[in-house]
Amino acid sequence: MTYFAPLDDMVFALLQAAGDGAFEEGGLYGDLGDGVAESTLAEAAKFAEQALHPLDRVGDRIGARFSEGAVICPPGWREAYSRWRDGGWNALAASPEFGGLGLPALLNAACTEIWNGANMAFALCPLLGQGAIEALEAHASEELKRVYLARVVSGEWTATMNLTEPQAGSDLSLVRTRAERSPDGAYRLKGQKIFITYGEHDLAGNIVHLVLARLPDAPEGTRGLSLFLAPKFLPGGDGRFTLRNDLRCAGLEHKLGIHGSPTCTMIYGDSGGATAWLVGEENKGLACMFTMMNSARLAVGLQGVGLAERATQTALAYARERRQGRSGADQGRSAERIVEHPDVMRMALTMQVLTQAARAICYETAASIDRARRERDPVRAGEADERAALLTPVAKGFSTDIANETASLGVQIFGGMGFIEETGAAQLMRDARILPIYEGTNGIQAIDLVGRKLRLGGGGALRREIADMYSVVEAAGGFAASGVVREAVAALEAASRSLLEADTSKALAGATPYLRLFALARGATLLMKGALSGDPRRVALARFFADNVAVAAPSLARVVVDGAPSLLEAGGTLL
Amino acid sequence: MTYFAPLDDMVFALLQAAGDGAFEEGGLYGDLGDGVAESTLAEAAKFAEQALHPLDRVGDRIGARFSEGAVICPPGWREAYSRWRDGGWNALAASPEFGGLGLPALLNAACTEIWNGANMAFALCPLLGQGAIEALEAHASEELKRVYLARVVSGEWTATMNLTEPQAGSDLSLVRTRAERSPDGAYRLKGQKIFITYGEHDLAGNIVHLVLARLPDAPEGTRGLSLFLAPKFLPGGDGRFTLRNDLRCAGLEHKLGIHGSPTCTMIYGDSGGATAWLVGEENKGLACMFTMMNSARLAVGLQGVGLAERATQTALAYARERRQGRSGADQGRSAERIVEHPDVMRMALTMQVLTQAARAICYETAASIDRARRERDPVRAGEADERAALLTPVAKGFSTDIANETASLGVQIFGGMGFIEETGAAQLMRDARILPIYEGTNGIQAIDLVGRKLRLGGGGALRREIADMYSVVEAAGGFAASGVVREAVAALEAASRSLLEADTSKALAGATPYLRLFALARGATLLMKGALSGDPRRVALARFFADNVAVAAPSLARVVVDGAPSLLEAGGTLL
Repeated sequence: MTYFAPLDDMVFALLQAAGDGAFEEGGLYGDLGDGVAESTLAEAAKFAEQALHPLDRVGDRIGARFSEGAVICPPGWREAYSRWRDGGWNALAASPEFGGLGLPALLNAACTEIWNGANMAFALCPLLGQGAIEALEAHASEELKRVYLARVVSGEWTATMNLTEPQAGSDLSLVRTRAERSPDGAYRLKGQKIFITYGEHDLAGNIVHLVLARLPDAPEGTRGLSLFLAPKFLPGGDGRFTLRNDLRCAGLEHKLGIHGSPTCTMIYGDSGGATAWLVGEENKGLACMFTMMNSARLAVGLQGVGLAERATQTALAYARERRQGRSGADQGRSAERIVEHPDVMRMALTMQVLTQAARAICYETAASIDRARRERDPVRAGEADERAALLTPVAKGFSTDIANETASLGVQIFGGMGFIEETGAAQLMRDARILPIYEGTNGIQAIDLVGRKLRLGGGGALRREIADMYSVVEAAGGFAASGVVREAVAALEAASRSLLEADTSKALAGATPYLRLFALARGATLLMKGALSGDPRRVALARFFADNVAVAAPSLARVVVDGAPSLLEAGGTLL
Repeated sequence: MTYFAPLDDMVFALLQAAGDGAFEEGGLYGDLGDGVAESTLAEAAKFAEQALHPLDRVGDRIGARFSEGAVICPPGWREAYSRWRDGGWNALAASPEFGGLGLPALLNAACTEIWNGANMAFALCPLLGQGAIEALEAHASEELKRVYLARVVSGEWTATMNLTEPQAGSDLSLVRTRAERSPDGAYRLKGQKIFITYGEHDLAGNIVHLVLARLPDAPEGTRGLSLFLAPKFLPGGDGRFTLRNDLRCAGLEHKLGIHGSPTCTMIYGDSGGATAWLVGEENKGLACMFTMMNSARLAVGLQGVGLAERATQTALAYARERRQGRSGADQGRSAERIVEHPDVMRMALTMQVLTQAARAICYETAASIDRARRERDPVRAGEADERAALLTPVAKGFSTDIANETASLGVQIFGGMGFIEETGAAQLMRDARILPIYEGTNGIQAIDLVGRKLRLGGGGALRREIADMYSVVEAAGGFAASGVVREAVAALEAASRSLLEADTSKALAGATPYLRLFALARGATLLMKGALSGDPRRVALARFFADNVAVAAPSLARVVVDGAPSLLEAGGTLL
């Protein structure tokens, strides 16, 4: 099983998301040198294919191991991490002020897809570090930034997010970890955190934990949460980070997938309290975490894209070699390649177009983040910011759902061999299964979309998004499937209206099918926009997506509009 | 994680499939004593819950192991198998002539669901044995029956199906295993078979292999396949079965799931040839295999039902305990049970109704088999036979698809805990993944449905089935969701017409969405029929199924009717 970054498709999607003229002087990315985007992606692809991907299988088979408080990453991973760090890959997105390359979010998004296509369990470590970097850049004191930020940016040290506790998962208001003020201006943390990705490992010299905890006098609920920085090693008398802090990994979870990524139970304050410093203000921890989470949500969406791409490549390669049976068209003697069977074609094409639609949505989200930061016109910057907020739950929810769907279709294309671990198709399915769960379950994404994002800017963000979809349909008037796509957008419009008028229960009941509907309409229009290039393959795939996938939109709209009463009534039988 | 056979739901579905008056004198099952069905299920439930289910997790964790040609089943499995055999459970379905209880297919179907809900990896052994029993009953010589059948029926010995070879999976025309005639009237087999479930194990004293192989002068393709019986132990001079035959297990597959079930590579004829006897006629092996396969296909559908039921129970139990967040309806202080959140309700209800729809379809299939065998009127018996043939691919394809969907939804309801192996939700997802693959992939089921079954009896079987669906809709005129259900049936009717007029490529292209459409329309009408009982829970669930699941039917019909051109065009880009 191999993975190659699909540079043609990626660059195409990247340029489409950037918009016309974006890389020209005065354009959104006019500051980037000519061809920098393409060459960065090509280098990233080379590194991922050569250094990260070959370690993916050993990561699955051997996994991270726990031994007397230490965590040993799979064979070869330490060396790969050194190459990652030394190659400067960790510093792509961060601000140049702290040693970062300051690459646009869009370019970083494409790289994130590549790392995760090659080796998702490995890529998860820098992915979470990137969220931490953003939180520190935005909220940490100058002193904390000075000491920690450059080292986390370079990858010399790694960083983690510590939110979850046994009783507090989706509901962070239930967090119990305590923080006490210490006379030296620092704090002491006591509590248990679970599901901490790379909470302990042997890849880097120090681990910077960002920890959500509660001060003694804090209000209840999420308004009483504060964010702290607690390093694994504290500075000793000589200023070198050699003193073990009072925090430790108590064990690793035995997981369905991403075996190479250590998922740690972390104990803070066994011996009096872990030394920690406040990030941002007291009781404003959740806002700081949201800085990390939004970035991480898009990144998790891109994990889904990378994994879906790899599942597609893997299954398609098999379907092009494996010979079984004869399809209807040719009743000759010799068995055909299974890719020639219409039913296998359907599976492989579905994998391809779902991947492309998810990629397009994620890249649009990333480009909107760039536009919000780079656009000089404040109105347009504000609109771009709203657009990024609107699209983020769709990017996360849809891309991770389709990662599971494509991984499962991939197993199906492999047939019996798909159920055997040696082919690797099953691993992708196991790995993918975490994506709709972490960084906010996809149910949480859907509720965020329906409960908050639809009303963003007085509903303006949604109106502009739908108007943009219609404009694509207009431009594609002669396109064979434009009628189906128009119906999909109209279905989204009707469902949106219904949700905006609905009471809370009905809106929540329709949230998940609505997110899917949104993604189908947006995906269909983005693929159709790409088809306007006239490239016969893009035309064919856009048409397939419309006729065979987005055609579900009207049914989904009916579920959103009419499904809630029977759901809420039947739900009563479950209680 | 526990499993309880849902006896109320099962008996309800069983009585509905049997039809009014079936258990009265002169009725379809009038020969069964009063209450025999209920008491048999209750006993089966007790046995499965107490003897089989507790061994499911150890089966997953430890799995079957291979050591020097032998296979060691997981701890406790030998004892469980002894209890299974001694309790007479293996003999339920077989003919009394060979020691079976001759139980109707419908009652046996319900038991099959129970065994597989409790421990699918264990239940797979007798499941395949049952297919072998049917093939031997129908095709074996009296001599072979005398020697082997009673022992396989009682469970003293087990039986296997040997079809697949590395190059011959879905396409059995590619089978290469050779059979040579021997002067003693027996045959000698040489070849390699893969994916042989329970091909070797330590549960029983002998293993009777049914092997598909090719005689030297046989025609090419499937018309040159013959079926043979090759036991692990041959009779020695004293008539006792102590002589090792020339066949062996060369190793086990390392699989995604059903770890307790040994999946063997079998080598025949290392030392000259495995001794075997012909079952049925030379070159008529495929027909004999089809006897096994149809029965096995329904049984695999029932594995899906059992697994889906267990996934639903498991997730629902968690959702009723786990407290996170507050839903819209109640913004009070304390966290709610997650089952109260509309989005979790949607997942749990979807799991419930998909399970019930699949159960209803499988039980209807089983009842049709009984009717074909027991009905005195030859026309009605013939129609029932056609109905069983029509419904079998739907029962297998849909039930195994929804087993995967429910298992994945179950993981999602567990959230982060779902990704951790200790909760067991992930195991169900891993186990379920084989179901759409083995006993004919679900693609093969869909092609069978579209390519052969739609035209059965000149299309009469399909017409009668759709007419029956409409009759339910008529009877449920006042039912809240009857409009949606009528649309689903109409969509099925339109899609069927389109397929009957379509060329082969188009029909094959639409096969998979058509199977789903068929199942949604049939499932919606069967649930609605159950709701006519007036039981509020059944009414609510039937309505939920209509409004939130079967509502996809018109979109699926459009994919079937209009999706093929773009599929076939885009498929060209894959080649």
